[in-house]
Amino acid sequence: MSDGAIAELAKRRGFFSQTAEPYGGVAGLYTYGPQGAALKDNIEAAWRELFVTREGHMEISAPDVLPGAVFEASGHLETFDDAIVECPECSGSHRADHLVEDATDLEDAEALSPERIGELIADREAGCPVCGTALADQPVEKFNLMFETNIGPGSGSPGYLRPETAQGIFVDFPQFAEYARNQLPFGVAQIGDAYRNEISPRKGLLRLRALVQAELEHFFDPDRDEPPLERVADVKLPLYAADAQRTGGGVRSLTVRAAVEEGAVEPWVAYYLGRSLEWYDEIGVDMDRFRYRQHRSEELSHYAADCWDAEAEVEGDWIELTGFAYRGSYDLEKHAAGTGEEYSVFRQYEEPVTVERPTVDPDMSELGPAFGSDAAAIAAALEELVERDPDAFDDERVVVEAGGDRHEVPVEHAGFAVEEVTESGEHVPPHVVEPSFGIDRLVYTVLAHGYSEDTVDGEERAYLAVPPAVAPTTVGVLPLMDRDGLAERARTVAEQLRAAGIAVAYDDSGSIGRRYRRQDEIGTPFCVTVDYESLEEETVTVRDRDTTAQRRIRTDGLAETLRSLRDGDRSFEEL
Amino acid sequence: MSDGAIAELAKRRGFFSQTAEPYGGVAGLYTYGPQGAALKDNIEAAWRELFVTREGHMEISAPDVLPGAVFEASGHLETFDDAIVECPECSGSHRADHLVEDATDLEDAEALSPERIGELIADREAGCPVCGTALADQPVEKFNLMFETNIGPGSGSPGYLRPETAQGIFVDFPQFAEYARNQLPFGVAQIGDAYRNEISPRKGLLRLRALVQAELEHFFDPDRDEPPLERVADVKLPLYAADAQRTGGGVRSLTVRAAVEEGAVEPWVAYYLGRSLEWYDEIGVDMDRFRYRQHRSEELSHYAADCWDAEAEVEGDWIELTGFAYRGSYDLEKHAAGTGEEYSVFRQYEEPVTVERPTVDPDMSELGPAFGSDAAAIAAALEELVERDPDAFDDERVVVEAGGDRHEVPVEHAGFAVEEVTESGEHVPPHVVEPSFGIDRLVYTVLAHGYSEDTVDGEERAYLAVPPAVAPTTVGVLPLMDRDGLAERARTVAEQLRAAGIAVAYDDSGSIGRRYRRQDEIGTPFCVTVDYESLEEETVTVRDRDTTAQRRIRTDGLAETLRSLRDGDRSFEEL
Repeated sequence: MSDGAIAELAKRRGFFSQTAEPYGGVAGLYTYGPQGAALKDNIEAAWRELFVTREGHMEISAPDVLPGAVFEASGHLETFDDAIVECPECSGSHRADHLVEDATDLEDAEALSPERIGELIADREAGCPVCGTALADQPVEKFNLMFETNIGPGSGSPGYLRPETAQGIFVDFPQFAEYARNQLPFGVAQIGDAYRNEISPRKGLLRLRALVQAELEHFFDPDRDEPPLERVADVKLPLYAADAQRTGGGVRSLTVRAAVEEGAVEPWVAYYLGRSLEWYDEIGVDMDRFRYRQHRSEELSHYAADCWDAEAEVEGDWIELTGFAYRGSYDLEKHAAGTGEEYSVFRQYEEPVTVERPTVDPDMSELGPAFGSDAAAIAAALEELVERDPDAFDDERVVVEAGGDRHEVPVEHAGFAVEEVTESGEHVPPHVVEPSFGIDRLVYTVLAHGYSEDTVDGEERAYLAVPPAVAPTTVGVLPLMDRDGLAERARTVAEQLRAAGIAVAYDDSGSIGRRYRRQDEIGTPFCVTVDYESLEEETVTVRDRDTTAQRRIRTDGLAETLRSLRDGDRSFEEL
Repeated sequence: MSDGAIAELAKRRGFFSQTAEPYGGVAGLYTYGPQGAALKDNIEAAWRELFVTREGHMEISAPDVLPGAVFEASGHLETFDDAIVECPECSGSHRADHLVEDATDLEDAEALSPERIGELIADREAGCPVCGTALADQPVEKFNLMFETNIGPGSGSPGYLRPETAQGIFVDFPQFAEYARNQLPFGVAQIGDAYRNEISPRKGLLRLRALVQAELEHFFDPDRDEPPLERVADVKLPLYAADAQRTGGGVRSLTVRAAVEEGAVEPWVAYYLGRSLEWYDEIGVDMDRFRYRQHRSEELSHYAADCWDAEAEVEGDWIELTGFAYRGSYDLEKHAAGTGEEYSVFRQYEEPVTVERPTVDPDMSELGPAFGSDAAAIAAALEELVERDPDAFDDERVVVEAGGDRHEVPVEHAGFAVEEVTESGEHVPPHVVEPSFGIDRLVYTVLAHGYSEDTVDGEERAYLAVPPAVAPTTVGVLPLMDRDGLAERARTVAEQLRAAGIAVAYDDSGSIGRRYRRQDEIGTPFCVTVDYESLEEETVTVRDRDTTAQRRIRTDGLAETLRSLRDGDRSFEEL
């Protein structure tokens, strides 16, 4: 299909359109209409079904606004930014790295320093994309992509809209570990909004300032825990490794088992690549336009040790649907440092163990007279030193720094000793693997991959071949004509189906063919038509969207039949 | 139960706790733990089931950040504020109206002007609630409760976190009207976050800075459309009218039919009071601690012509669960004025009608020489005047204002005429009724009303009697002991139930009695126990939370049985 056709269909048929259009709209803000919101809800429900219910993880929900200290610790205040350059003529702000990519062969200018980007802009004489003014002498700066606000009155409590839902999980990890009774591994999932104050977003639903993420943080002990690989061992992964990208290689198909055995993918990441692949297929992503691409080292986020993206080909481009990042213990360590609290899991030993622990007990009656006002700082330095380097107490004198000076302390005055201590367990810093799904991009991909055209009875038609389980509307209820009591009967049928929890569109306006096309175009998998036979005997016809085949069935089991078709318990052919 | 017991249970058992506690927490920001998030999801799903699926409305999803112009038009920039006073000693910010309420008999100081609040603070010598310093000379000011941010780089595009989800619906009404094919009545629903930058929130989940709303905007033609009252005519409403509040009267029980016939409640509002009452009951709100309270005129929001609140008694206080506001055409008119676009529904006449329309066609060859540089403005003023007051053209001269002066124009130079115009329809400005549900407060109320204590086998126990459909976990799967293969069998049962989409908690730690209590306390309606008989024959026991009764049933239909118990298709007694 042609470029922009999805956006046109999306607006016309109620999937999505720019927010506040009567006010001129705002770049990067989109509103889901009735079909889009239902599709999005259904995809979220399918995600929850797999990643929460089936996998047995906990789901939590944290607020979108978090205090500044969280992002100071997480590194987002320091590093979550893009390079910006402003046009001196029209005052338009632009992503400086994108200007460089447009003017050079570079594909990943984001990884360059602002200075280097500025040099390349000058070198290639790049101009403002709006008015053409040369940007050679304009400063290239870092622009932080978090939306900033203030919590409460005054300006003393900066807050930020979270750039990823993940931080709402990491920050309260100690609480969630308690809910998991301190037993690794455990997973914490969240579906919610994330925000990126993009400089000048121009890609519709693919580059949003307010987006929906579904993230799972799976915490585990890297020394002991292994993922249940047997569940997915034979799933074939289309892998586009970093090496292959550098050397001009292609996608290799490997089973999960083989990928782990070769060491091509970390086992926990591999588990989720396998689990997710089946899920993408179920919700309507075309597996012929799908791959897993590994991040090259220069594109890894500040927190990630390794990362694979699920990518789909849409309108000729590969777009990221999900990042599967191995974040190690980065985030928990940062928040531990930021708060001084334990961000670890306490693992009880089967039996308490006795260990030797070097200690000091500084003799202040000696240190006081000898070092005066530095004595207390020296005592603290000794306590710090004994934990770090007990061997330093082997000689007669130990050297510490305190108050800016080096001091020699006789070991006998430090009160050095080795004690026997009984420990009942230890603090284990978990590692984490994070499948992070962009729900909006999934919606877009399911639309684009579902879009189909064929010819029915000599007429061309467009239809959305989305799986019944995620289709916005499950059934269109259509009276053959709006007379002779057909509409009344159809309305009763619609009411009954709605009462059974089925998403129904009732439509009595226009010819029956036109109404079928309307439902086809929004992906409604089944149409129930009420005709003259329906009035005589208690039956209706059910029409299948993809084949346009029809079956006549009795009204009394209709809701149950449609429910089983929707949930995949039965196929249309079996009717 | 005692004050604070809900908050204690909530934190200990994973319902909710303050966000970012390791950082000291932030007032008004709470995170739902696994039980709370599931309860909240289930309540949202039940809301969607009624207000979207069954009622046949469209659901949409707009972003949380909207541009400033939207809130300038909606009136929120001007009026969405609280009175604030700052302590000169400790710099604490406080709600000035609350200080007045604490120091006087007034219950509704919010309605007073800042000046009057300042006078009362001085008069009653109110002090800072933190440090006691007298606040008599401190200025009382208005503080806008919207979180402010900036969209994109620079400071030219202020944005605000929406204070109600409703504005995301109103602002794009023209688009939604198109999706409804310009047929009134239609409803647009949304579940999402709303934000209020409270000055010093201190009531836990009841006074949040980031909250969840489920709102329905039902648009209708006030001259033609009537709600389907017959569906709810006999539902009895516990009404606490504004009059009764003023005169010291009490709650009256009236059927929906009687309430409408007496004129006590506007019909569309009455319809939703009836619909919602059944729904509150279904999700676990105790109808003996429930009422509908009408707003007194002084507490109405700036947009509301009338409003009833659903209120529940929780821990001794009546709290608002839902506002049912009659917003008239206020919001659509404001956005029409803010954008110059049509915020109405175009209703086609059955046949075109011919109407007379007064027009002008100013003669610039006369006006130019006579009025010079004011001529164009005078012509525009004439065009505006003829629409507003065609009678002004009855005399020989017509008077208009332009360029700050009054001008007399000979009517013959205005080109006044009455034309016959054929019109195919008219623009109807819809009215709107808005049921606006606070999901967080519903979660809190369902917890508080579900909390129960009794004695089982001589032991006291606490349990949450929440309806199975909204309970966070549907079934606890418990091996009688963790040996002899019981745990393995139980794990298999848990896996099978999860694969069938049932929310399962598996627990093998501690005595069976203790594990039952744990599930009781989080409201799990059913426990499946795997015992020695389970190994011999394919059976398990199912235990009912409220009665603690047990039934032995076969494993092969277990998932189906539990699903029908959860969905209310079967009762435990029928097993």
